Amino acid sequence: MANCPDFDSAFREQFGELLRWRRDVRRFLPDSVPSALLETVLASVAHAPSVGNSQPWRFVRVDSSSRRQGLLNSFRRANDEALAGYRGERAAHYARLKLSGLAEAPIVLAVFTDEATNQGHGLGRRTMPETLRYSTVGAVHTLWLVARCHGLGVGWVSIIEPDSVRTLLEVPSAWSLTALLCLGWPVEDHVDPELERAGWQERSRSLPVLIHR
Amino acid sequence: MANCPDFDSAFREQFGELLRWRRDVRRFLPDSVPSALLETVLASVAHAPSVGNSQPWRFVRVDSSSRRQGLLNSFRRANDEALAGYRGERAAHYARLKLSGLAEAPIVLAVFTDEATNQGHGLGRRTMPETLRYSTVGAVHTLWLVARCHGLGVGWVSIIEPDSVRTLLEVPSAWSLTALLCLGWPVEDHVDPELERAGWQERSRSLPVLIHR
Repeated sequence: MANCPDFDSAFREQFGELLRWRRDVRRFLPDSVPSALLETVLASVAHAPSVGNSQPWRFVRVDSSSRRQGLLNSFRRANDEALAGYRGERAAHYARLKLSGLAEAPIVLAVFTDEATNQGHGLGRRTMPETLRYSTVGAVHTLWLVARCHGLGVGWVSIIEPDSVRTLLEVPSAWSLTALLCLGWPVEDHVDPELERAGWQERSRSLPVLIHR
Repeated sequence: MANCPDFDSAFREQFGELLRWRRDVRRFLPDSVPSALLETVLASVAHAPSVGNSQPWRFVRVDSSSRRQGLLNSFRRANDEALAGYRGERAAHYARLKLSGLAEAPIVLAVFTDEATNQGHGLGRRTMPETLRYSTVGAVHTLWLVARCHGLGVGWVSIIEPDSVRTLLEVPSAWSLTALLCLGWPVEDHVDPELERAGWQERSRSLPVLIHR
Protein backbone atom coordinates (compact mmCIF):
# COMPACT_ATOMS: atom_id res chain seq x y z
CA MET A 1 0.00 0.00 0.00
CA ALA A 2 1.42 3.39 -1.03
CA ASN A 3 1.50 6.18 1.52
CA CYS A 4 -1.50 8.45 1.56
CA PRO A 5 -0.46 12.10 1.19
CA ASP A 6 -1.36 14.59 3.86
CA PHE A 7 -3.81 17.20 2.60
CA ASP A 8 -2.83 20.07 4.87
CA SER A 9 -4.68 23.29 5.59
CA ALA A 10 -2.73 25.18 2.89
CA PHE A 11 -3.89 22.68 0.27
CA ARG A 12 -7.43 22.68 1.60
CA GLU A 13 -7.51 26.47 1.37
CA GLN A 14 -6.29 26.40 -2.22
CA PHE A 15 -8.74 23.63 -3.13
CA GLY A 16 -11.50 25.82 -1.68
CA GLU A 17 -10.34 28.59 -4.02
CA LEU A 18 -10.56 26.18 -6.95
CA LEU A 19 -14.16 25.34 -6.02
CA ARG A 20 -14.99 29.05 -5.70
CA TRP A 21 -13.36 30.01 -9.01
CA ARG A 22 -14.75 27.13 -11.07
CA ARG A 23 -17.28 28.79 -13.33
CA ASP A 24 -19.71 27.83 -16.06
CA VAL A 25 -17.94 29.67 -18.88
CA ARG A 26 -19.83 30.88 -21.94
CA ARG A 27 -17.41 33.53 -23.28
CA PHE A 28 -14.32 32.09 -24.90
CA LEU A 29 -11.27 33.55 -26.62
CA PRO A 30 -10.70 32.20 -30.14
CA ASP A 31 -7.28 30.77 -29.15
CA SER A 32 -6.92 27.05 -29.65
CA VAL A 33 -6.26 24.52 -26.88
CA PRO A 34 -3.27 22.18 -27.33
CA SER A 35 -4.31 18.56 -27.87
CA ALA A 36 -1.84 17.42 -25.21
CA LEU A 37 -3.60 19.62 -22.64
CA LEU A 38 -6.98 18.18 -23.59
CA GLU A 39 -5.51 14.68 -23.17
CA THR A 40 -4.15 15.58 -19.73
CA VAL A 41 -7.55 16.84 -18.66
CA LEU A 42 -9.34 13.79 -20.07
CA ALA A 43 -6.89 11.41 -18.40
CA SER A 44 -7.97 12.73 -14.99
CA VAL A 45 -11.49 11.34 -15.39
CA ALA A 46 -10.14 7.81 -14.99
CA HIS A 47 -10.12 8.59 -11.26
CA ALA A 48 -13.71 9.75 -11.01
CA PRO A 49 -16.02 7.57 -8.91
CA SER A 50 -18.31 5.21 -10.80
CA VAL A 51 -20.96 2.72 -9.75
CA GLY A 52 -19.44 -0.77 -9.63
CA ASN A 53 -16.28 0.76 -11.14
CA SER A 54 -18.20 0.80 -14.44
CA GLN A 55 -16.49 3.92 -15.93
CA PRO A 56 -19.39 4.36 -18.39
CA TRP A 57 -18.33 7.80 -19.72
CA ARG A 58 -17.69 8.17 -23.46
CA PHE A 59 -16.38 11.36 -25.06
CA VAL A 60 -17.01 12.69 -28.55
CA ARG A 61 -15.07 15.71 -29.75
CA VAL A 62 -17.04 17.64 -32.37
CA ASP A 63 -14.83 19.38 -34.93
CA SER A 64 -16.64 19.18 -38.27
CA SER A 65 -18.21 22.52 -39.07
CA SER A 66 -21.45 20.95 -40.27
CA ARG A 67 -21.87 19.09 -36.99
CA ARG A 68 -20.90 22.16 -34.96
CA GLN A 69 -23.62 24.01 -36.88
CA GLY A 70 -26.05 21.17 -36.17
CA LEU A 71 -25.40 21.50 -32.43
CA LEU A 72 -25.91 25.24 -32.63
CA ASN A 73 -29.21 24.74 -34.48
CA SER A 74 -30.37 22.32 -31.78
CA PHE A 75 -29.39 24.82 -29.08
CA ARG A 76 -31.31 27.59 -30.85
CA ARG A 77 -34.46 25.50 -31.22
CA ALA A 78 -34.33 24.43 -27.55
CA ASN A 79 -33.59 27.99 -26.47
CA ASP A 80 -36.48 29.46 -28.51
CA GLU A 81 -38.81 26.91 -26.96
CA ALA A 82 -37.54 27.76 -23.47
CA LEU A 83 -37.99 31.48 -24.12
CA ALA A 84 -41.59 30.83 -25.19
CA GLY A 85 -42.20 29.37 -21.72
CA TYR A 86 -41.52 32.70 -19.98
CA ARG A 87 -43.73 35.78 -19.90
CA GLY A 88 -43.25 39.53 -19.56
CA GLU A 89 -40.13 40.91 -17.89
CA ARG A 90 -38.84 37.39 -17.16
CA ALA A 91 -38.97 36.57 -20.89
CA ALA A 92 -37.20 39.81 -21.80
CA HIS A 93 -34.54 39.02 -19.19
CA TYR A 94 -34.11 35.45 -20.48
CA ALA A 95 -33.67 36.72 -24.04
CA ARG A 96 -30.75 38.91 -22.92
CA LEU A 97 -28.79 36.06 -21.25
CA LYS A 98 -25.80 34.46 -22.90
CA LEU A 99 -26.42 30.79 -22.31
CA SER A 100 -23.81 28.96 -24.34
CA GLY A 101 -20.42 29.38 -25.95
CA LEU A 102 -21.20 26.80 -28.65
CA ALA A 103 -20.51 29.24 -31.48
CA GLU A 104 -17.08 30.29 -30.21
CA ALA A 105 -15.57 27.55 -28.05
CA PRO A 106 -12.47 25.96 -29.60
CA ILE A 107 -13.45 22.55 -28.21
CA VAL A 108 -16.91 20.99 -27.98
CA LEU A 109 -17.23 17.67 -26.20
CA ALA A 110 -20.38 15.59 -26.07
CA VAL A 111 -20.28 13.29 -23.07
CA PHE A 112 -22.34 10.11 -23.25
CA THR A 113 -23.13 7.26 -20.88
CA ASP A 114 -22.81 3.76 -22.29
CA GLU A 115 -26.01 2.26 -20.88
CA ALA A 116 -25.03 -1.18 -22.19
CA THR A 117 -21.60 -1.48 -20.62
CA ASN A 118 -20.87 -4.71 -18.86
CA GLN A 119 -18.00 -3.18 -16.90
CA GLY A 120 -18.92 -3.49 -13.22
CA HIS A 121 -21.22 -6.46 -13.98
CA GLY A 122 -24.28 -4.42 -13.08
CA LEU A 123 -23.16 -3.99 -9.47
CA GLY A 124 -24.97 -1.21 -7.60
CA ARG A 125 -27.45 -0.27 -10.28
CA ARG A 126 -30.34 -2.63 -9.93
CA THR A 127 -32.59 -0.42 -7.79
CA MET A 128 -31.01 2.89 -8.89
CA PRO A 129 -30.00 2.44 -12.54
CA GLU A 130 -29.59 6.21 -12.86
CA THR A 131 -26.32 5.88 -10.93
CA LEU A 132 -24.68 4.86 -14.22
CA ARG A 133 -25.44 8.34 -15.62
CA TYR A 134 -24.50 9.88 -12.26
CA SER A 135 -21.06 8.29 -12.70
CA THR A 136 -20.64 10.21 -15.94
CA VAL A 137 -21.64 13.40 -14.12
CA GLY A 138 -18.83 12.75 -11.61
CA ALA A 139 -16.42 12.42 -14.54
CA VAL A 140 -17.66 15.73 -15.97
CA HIS A 141 -17.19 17.47 -12.63
CA THR A 142 -13.68 16.02 -12.33
CA LEU A 143 -12.80 17.21 -15.84
CA TRP A 144 -14.23 20.64 -15.02
CA LEU A 145 -12.05 21.12 -11.92
CA VAL A 146 -8.89 19.81 -13.58
CA ALA A 147 -9.48 22.05 -16.62
CA ARG A 148 -9.86 25.04 -14.29
CA CYS A 149 -6.53 24.18 -12.63
CA HIS A 150 -4.98 24.71 -16.06
CA GLY A 151 -6.82 27.98 -16.64
CA LEU A 152 -9.29 26.38 -19.05
CA GLY A 153 -12.96 27.27 -18.83
CA VAL A 154 -15.77 24.75 -19.18
CA GLY A 155 -19.41 25.47 -19.93
CA TRP A 156 -22.16 22.85 -19.63
CA VAL A 157 -24.90 23.33 -22.22
CA SER A 158 -28.16 21.65 -21.20
CA ILE A 159 -30.37 23.72 -23.51
CA ILE A 160 -30.11 21.13 -26.26
CA GLU A 161 -32.15 18.27 -27.73
CA PRO A 162 -30.43 15.09 -26.52
CA ASP A 163 -31.88 12.85 -29.25
CA SER A 164 -30.82 15.27 -31.98
CA VAL A 165 -27.29 15.23 -30.60
CA ARG A 166 -27.17 11.44 -30.58
CA THR A 167 -28.38 11.29 -34.17
CA LEU A 168 -26.08 14.07 -35.35
CA LEU A 169 -23.00 12.46 -33.82
CA GLU A 170 -23.89 8.90 -34.95
CA VAL A 171 -23.08 7.25 -31.64
CA PRO A 172 -24.09 3.69 -30.68
CA SER A 173 -27.78 3.39 -29.83
CA ALA A 174 -27.02 2.41 -26.22
CA TRP A 175 -25.27 5.72 -25.52
CA SER A 176 -27.36 8.42 -23.87
CA LEU A 177 -26.30 12.06 -23.81
CA THR A 178 -25.33 13.18 -20.32
CA ALA A 179 -23.62 16.53 -21.01
CA LEU A 180 -22.58 18.80 -23.83
CA LEU A 181 -19.46 20.78 -22.90
CA CYS A 182 -17.67 23.79 -24.34
CA LEU A 183 -13.97 24.17 -23.46
CA GLY A 184 -11.55 26.98 -24.07
CA TRP A 185 -9.76 29.99 -22.63
CA PRO A 186 -12.20 32.28 -20.80
CA VAL A 187 -12.45 35.92 -21.84
CA GLU A 188 -12.40 36.89 -18.15
CA ASP A 189 -12.09 35.16 -14.78
CA HIS A 190 -14.97 35.63 -12.36
CA VAL A 191 -15.63 34.43 -8.85
CA ASP A 192 -19.40 35.07 -9.14
CA PRO A 193 -21.62 32.94 -11.38
CA GLU A 194 -22.69 34.43 -14.72
CA LEU A 195 -26.40 34.04 -13.84
CA GLU A 196 -25.81 35.94 -10.61
CA ARG A 197 -24.00 38.79 -12.36
CA ALA A 198 -26.83 38.95 -14.87
CA GLY A 199 -29.39 39.22 -12.05
CA TRP A 200 -31.20 36.00 -12.98
CA GLN A 201 -30.53 33.90 -9.90
CA GLU A 202 -28.39 34.59 -6.83
CA ARG A 203 -26.49 31.84 -5.16
CA SER A 204 -27.80 31.09 -1.71
CA ARG A 205 -25.23 32.16 0.90
CA SER A 206 -26.62 30.08 3.76
CA LEU A 207 -25.50 26.58 4.68
CA PRO A 208 -27.34 23.88 2.76
CA VAL A 209 -30.48 22.64 4.48
CA LEU A 210 -29.59 19.87 6.94
CA ILE A 211 -32.59 18.06 8.35
CA HIS A 212 -32.22 15.63 11.24
CA ARG A 213 -34.17 12.37 11.29
CA MET B 1 -13.50 41.54 -9.58
CA ALA B 2 -11.22 39.73 -7.15
CA ASN B 3 -7.94 38.32 -8.42
CA CYS B 4 -8.07 34.77 -9.64
CA PRO B 5 -5.48 32.63 -7.85
CA ASP B 6 -2.83 30.85 -9.86
CA PHE B 7 -3.18 27.09 -9.67
CA ASP B 8 0.45 26.12 -10.17
CA SER B 9 1.93 22.74 -11.02
CA ALA B 10 2.54 21.91 -7.34
CA PHE B 11 -1.15 22.41 -6.60
CA ARG B 12 -2.21 20.49 -9.70
CA GLU B 13 0.00 17.58 -8.65
CA GLN B 14 -1.51 17.54 -5.16
CA PHE B 15 -5.03 17.84 -6.55
CA GLY B 16 -4.25 14.83 -8.77
CA GLU B 17 -3.28 12.95 -5.60
CA LEU B 18 -6.60 13.89 -4.04
CA LEU B 19 -8.46 12.48 -7.06
CA ARG B 20 -6.38 9.28 -6.89
CA TRP B 21 -6.84 8.80 -3.14
CA ARG B 22 -10.57 9.55 -3.05
CA ARG B 23 -12.15 6.21 -2.35
CA ASP B 24 -15.60 4.73 -1.90
CA VAL B 25 -15.17 3.81 1.77
CA ARG B 26 -17.18 0.99 3.34
CA ARG B 27 -15.04 0.22 6.41
CA PHE B 28 -15.29 2.83 9.14
CA LEU B 29 -13.80 3.26 12.59
CA PRO B 30 -16.40 3.77 15.32
CA ASP B 31 -14.96 7.20 16.23
CA SER B 32 -17.39 10.07 15.92
CA VAL B 33 -17.03 13.02 13.54
CA PRO B 34 -17.21 16.52 15.08
CA SER B 35 -20.34 18.42 14.02
CA ALA B 36 -18.22 21.45 13.12
CA LEU B 37 -16.25 19.34 10.63
CA LEU B 38 -19.45 18.06 9.04
CA GLU B 39 -20.64 21.67 8.73
CA THR B 40 -17.37 22.68 7.07
CA VAL B 41 -17.72 19.88 4.56
CA LEU B 42 -21.38 20.68 3.88
CA ALA B 43 -20.63 24.38 3.43
CA SER B 44 -18.37 23.54 0.48
CA VAL B 45 -21.29 22.26 -1.58
CA ALA B 46 -22.58 25.82 -1.97
CA HIS B 47 -19.91 26.17 -4.67
CA ALA B 48 -20.89 23.11 -6.68
CA PRO B 49 -22.23 23.77 -10.18
CA SER B 50 -26.00 23.62 -10.61
CA VAL B 51 -28.31 24.06 -13.56
CA GLY B 52 -29.65 27.63 -13.60
CA ASN B 53 -27.94 28.12 -10.23
CA SER B 54 -30.82 26.09 -8.77
CA GLN B 55 -28.85 24.49 -5.88
CA PRO B 56 -31.50 21.75 -5.56
CA TRP B 57 -29.57 19.55 -3.07
CA ARG B 58 -31.18 18.77 0.29
CA PHE B 59 -29.45 16.84 3.07
CA VAL B 60 -30.97 14.63 5.72
CA ARG B 61 -28.78 13.31 8.52
CA VAL B 62 -30.10 10.03 9.86
CA ASP B 63 -29.37 9.49 13.55
CA SER B 64 -32.36 7.71 15.04
CA SER B 65 -31.55 4.06 15.58
CA SER B 66 -34.90 2.92 14.23
CA ARG B 67 -34.37 4.81 10.99
CA ARG B 68 -30.77 3.64 10.71
CA GLN B 69 -32.14 0.09 11.08
CA GLY B 70 -34.76 0.85 8.42
CA LEU B 71 -32.04 1.90 5.98
CA LEU B 72 -30.07 -1.25 6.74
CA ASN B 73 -33.16 -3.37 6.13
CA SER B 74 -33.71 -1.66 2.78
CA PHE B 75 -30.08 -2.25 1.84
CA ARG B 76 -30.35 -5.93 2.78
CA ARG B 77 -33.52 -6.44 0.72
CA ALA B 78 -31.99 -4.70 -2.31
CA ASN B 79 -28.75 -6.62 -1.86
CA ASP B 80 -30.51 -9.98 -1.60
CA GLU B 81 -32.40 -9.19 -4.78
CA ALA B 82 -29.18 -8.19 -6.54
CA LEU B 83 -27.47 -11.38 -5.40
CA ALA B 84 -30.36 -13.42 -6.82
CA GLY B 85 -29.58 -11.87 -10.22
CA TYR B 86 -26.12 -13.50 -10.37
CA ARG B 87 -25.29 -17.16 -10.98
CA GLY B 88 -22.50 -19.57 -10.06
CA GLU B 89 -19.05 -18.21 -9.20
CA ARG B 90 -20.14 -14.62 -9.89
CA ALA B 91 -22.90 -15.00 -7.25
CA ALA B 92 -20.48 -16.50 -4.73
CA HIS B 93 -18.08 -13.62 -5.39
CA TYR B 94 -20.85 -11.02 -5.01
CA ALA B 95 -21.89 -12.54 -1.69
CA ARG B 96 -18.36 -12.05 -0.32
CA LEU B 97 -18.17 -8.33 -1.16
CA LYS B 98 -18.57 -5.65 1.48
CA LEU B 99 -20.86 -3.18 -0.25
CA SER B 100 -21.84 -0.69 2.43
CA GLY B 101 -20.77 0.75 5.74
CA LEU B 102 -24.36 1.52 6.77
CA ALA B 103 -24.11 -0.53 9.94
CA GLU B 104 -20.93 1.16 11.23
CA ALA B 105 -20.61 4.66 9.75
CA PRO B 106 -20.91 7.40 12.39
CA ILE B 107 -22.76 9.64 9.91
CA VAL B 108 -25.38 8.68 7.35
CA LEU B 109 -26.59 11.37 4.97
CA ALA B 110 -29.46 10.95 2.54
CA VAL B 111 -29.09 13.46 -0.29
CA PHE B 112 -32.25 14.47 -2.10
CA THR B 113 -33.08 16.65 -5.09
CA ASP B 114 -35.92 19.12 -4.66
CA GLU B 115 -37.71 18.57 -7.97
CA ALA B 116 -40.12 21.41 -7.21
CA THR B 117 -37.61 24.15 -6.50
CA ASN B 118 -38.25 27.44 -8.23
CA GLN B 119 -34.65 28.56 -7.72
CA GLY B 120 -33.18 29.12 -11.17
CA HIS B 121 -36.67 29.68 -12.63
CA GLY B 122 -36.43 26.47 -14.64
CA LEU B 123 -33.49 27.72 -16.68
CA GLY B 124 -31.59 24.97 -18.52
CA ARG B 125 -33.85 22.09 -17.65
CA ARG B 126 -36.63 22.11 -20.19
CA THR B 127 -35.16 19.57 -22.62
CA MET B 128 -32.90 17.85 -20.06
CA PRO B 129 -34.79 17.93 -16.73
CA GLU B 130 -32.40 15.33 -15.33
CA THR B 131 -29.79 18.09 -15.01
CA LEU B 132 -31.51 19.07 -11.76
CA ARG B 133 -30.51 15.70 -10.28
CA TYR B 134 -27.12 15.94 -11.97
CA SER B 135 -26.59 19.17 -10.00
CA THR B 136 -27.06 17.23 -6.79
CA VAL B 137 -24.51 14.68 -8.01
CA GLY B 138 -22.00 17.52 -8.47
CA ALA B 139 -22.68 18.56 -4.89
CA VAL B 140 -22.07 15.00 -3.68
CA HIS B 141 -18.78 14.81 -5.58
CA THR B 142 -17.71 18.17 -4.13
CA LEU B 143 -18.55 16.99 -0.61
CA TRP B 144 -16.67 13.75 -1.25
CA LEU B 145 -13.43 15.49 -2.26
CA VAL B 146 -13.59 18.06 0.55
CA ALA B 147 -14.26 15.29 3.10
CA ARG B 148 -11.21 13.40 1.79
CA CYS B 149 -9.08 16.54 2.25
CA HIS B 150 -9.94 16.30 5.94
CA GLY B 151 -9.17 12.55 6.11
CA LEU B 152 -12.86 11.64 6.15
CA GLY B 153 -14.07 8.72 4.06
CA VAL B 154 -17.31 8.74 2.08
CA GLY B 155 -19.18 5.73 0.72
CA TRP B 156 -22.06 6.03 -1.75
CA VAL B 157 -24.69 3.32 -1.22
CA SER B 158 -26.83 2.76 -4.33
CA ILE B 159 -28.03 -0.70 -3.30
CA ILE B 160 -31.11 0.71 -1.65
CA GLU B 161 -34.83 1.20 -2.39
CA PRO B 162 -35.24 4.93 -3.09
CA ASP B 163 -38.97 5.02 -2.34
CA SER B 164 -38.49 3.22 0.97
CA VAL B 165 -35.88 5.80 1.96
CA ARG B 166 -38.20 8.69 1.08
CA THR B 167 -41.01 7.18 3.15
CA LEU B 168 -38.76 6.27 6.07
CA LEU B 169 -37.27 9.77 6.29
CA GLU B 170 -40.61 11.58 5.79
CA VAL B 171 -39.32 14.10 3.29
CA PRO B 172 -41.51 16.34 1.10
CA SER B 173 -43.11 14.45 -1.78
CA ALA B 174 -41.24 16.53 -4.39
CA TRP B 175 -37.85 15.34 -3.12
CA SER B 176 -36.27 12.42 -4.97
CA LEU B 177 -33.40 10.41 -3.53
CA THR B 178 -30.16 11.03 -5.39
CA ALA B 179 -27.59 9.46 -3.06
CA LEU B 180 -27.26 7.74 0.29
CA LEU B 181 -23.87 8.47 1.86
CA CYS B 182 -21.89 7.00 4.74
CA LEU B 183 -19.25 9.26 6.31
CA GLY B 184 -16.58 8.54 8.88
CA TRP B 185 -12.93 7.80 9.51
CA PRO B 186 -11.69 5.01 7.23
CA VAL B 187 -10.14 1.90 8.79
CA GLU B 188 -7.36 2.11 6.18
CA ASP B 189 -6.33 4.39 3.31
CA HIS B 190 -6.12 2.83 -0.13
CA VAL B 191 -5.16 4.14 -3.53
CA ASP B 192 -6.87 1.23 -5.33
CA PRO B 193 -10.66 0.87 -5.41
CA GLU B 194 -12.23 -1.71 -3.08
CA LEU B 195 -13.87 -3.53 -6.01
CA GLU B 196 -10.50 -3.80 -7.71
CA ARG B 197 -8.79 -5.18 -4.61
CA ALA B 198 -11.63 -7.68 -4.28
CA GLY B 199 -11.13 -8.82 -7.89
CA TRP B 200 -14.64 -7.79 -9.00
CA GLN B 201 -13.80 -5.07 -11.51
CA GLU B 202 -10.48 -3.50 -12.47
CA ARG B 203 -10.24 0.13 -13.34
CA SER B 204 -9.38 0.70 -16.96
CA ARG B 205 -5.85 2.15 -17.21
CA SER B 206 -6.23 3.50 -20.75
CA LEU B 207 -7.31 7.01 -21.66
CA PRO B 208 -11.05 7.41 -21.90
CA VAL B 209 -12.47 6.77 -25.36
CA LEU B 210 -12.29 9.97 -27.43
CA ILE B 211 -14.15 9.78 -30.71
CA HIS B 212 -13.80 12.50 -33.32
CA ARG B 213 -16.82 13.70 -35.27
